Amino acid sequence: MTYCVSMLLDAGMVFLSDSRTNAGVDHINTFRKTSIFQRPGERVLVLMSSGNLAITQQLVSMLREAMAAQDGRENLWSVPNMFEAARHVGEMLREVHRRDAEALKNFGIDFTAALILGGQIGTEQPRLFHIYAAGNFIEATPDTPVVKRYTSLDEAAKLALISMDSTIRSNLSVGVPLDLTILKTNELKIASHISIDAKNEYFAMIRNRWSEALGHAFDELPNPDWLDSGEQS
Amino acid sequence: MTYCVSMLLDAGMVFLSDSRTNAGVDHINTFRKTSIFQRPGERVLVLMSSGNLAITQQLVSMLREAMAAQDGRENLWSVPNMFEAARHVGEMLREVHRRDAEALKNFGIDFTAALILGGQIGTEQPRLFHIYAAGNFIEATPDTPVVKRYTSLDEAAKLALISMDSTIRSNLSVGVPLDLTILKTNELKIASHISIDAKNEYFAMIRNRWSEALGHAFDELPNPDWLDSGEQS
Repeated sequence: MTYCVSMLLDAGMVFLSDSRTNAGVDHINTFRKTSIFQRPGERVLVLMSSGNLAITQQLVSMLREAMAAQDGRENLWSVPNMFEAARHVGEMLREVHRRDAEALKNFGIDFTAALILGGQIGTEQPRLFHIYAAGNFIEATPDTPVVKRYTSLDEAAKLALISMDSTIRSNLSVGVPLDLTILKTNELKIASHISIDAKNEYFAMIRNRWSEALGHAFDELPNPDWLDSGEQS
Repeated sequence: MTYCVSMLLDAGMVFLSDSRTNAGVDHINTFRKTSIFQRPGERVLVLMSSGNLAITQQLVSMLREAMAAQDGRENLWSVPNMFEAARHVGEMLREVHRRDAEALKNFGIDFTAALILGGQIGTEQPRLFHIYAAGNFIEATPDTPVVKRYTSLDEAAKLALISMDSTIRSNLSVGVPLDLTILKTNELKIASHISIDAKNEYFAMIRNRWSEALGHAFDELPNPDWLDSGEQS
């Protein structure tokens, strides 16, 4: 499994992905799921991918090839804004689908891919998109927040790491190292890009103390005392 | 969506299901997802179902018809143990599949069903099974516990309700009323069967205090202070 989480805040954006991929639990590898495309001061884009690794790696290769080609074709350096960037990534994913989906289907393998694309281009505000396997996409809007927009980037990173910790605990196929990427609004470059492994002291502290705090909170809540009252319905 | 959770403990079993079903979020209905079959002192079985409601309702109807028929065919009153009960339910589900899967497929609808079957028959220990759409099944064993086997039924009910609360918060299509069913080992009857709605004081307390405790635990953990150290990889 892959776990990726991203938050769009007033202060910037936080991206966190695990890096474990597997073909069955007995065959676990780690690959980066976070790709960064930046021209500091001009544009910065972060792409996190989940799904069939053969598909998502091919997608990233094609995006990079188009950027390197300098043949006048649209690419992530040339798109004028984040909406066009999301559309371009969706188009490329459809191209992978055209090439591979039929062959995969013959082997009973679904064409699965889910992408998160966020970043900022020029004077536009930072934007965040979720791109589906079919190449269509949705944008994160202020109408659907889980986290308050004024949350600080530090606090959002803490929240993302706690969320990742809970996911790692419940799913063997999600694991360290993690990629944590942070953008600050209007900096138009990566503010931090940190690989977090099992030796990272902060993440180890989060893992211990969050679990302890949950156990404590659980113990503090009273048990139901109405269960022995017999059948009530 | 459906959320069902069950725990097999030394003291007995806990089953909790929500009751909301939907065909799109604008068309939400509530139906019971927990079915109880008991002959007190002889056997007690609890079946929780998720998936396509037309499939799972048909399954439960067929199980009940077979039990009422008294025609010598196998049914949940006649099976000698819980393993045979799980096999019987899986067989019935395959019968539904034979009748409906082709027609559903023509409308682009998947044959989805996931069942939890638990209970106790005669002198056998209580057993718990997860039955898949294909009619095959796995059994909960002491090797794969998430909760300690010696956990009390009250505490397990508290845990199940906290788990349900978290699920309700993150998914609009899971909601009250909830069905909470408790069996005690060797009683061979339902110990408690309680419908929990929005007015249930205990669940309301859990909802408030767990959320408060999480917020407090989150605030207590320090934010990372190493994010401004720049790009580290």
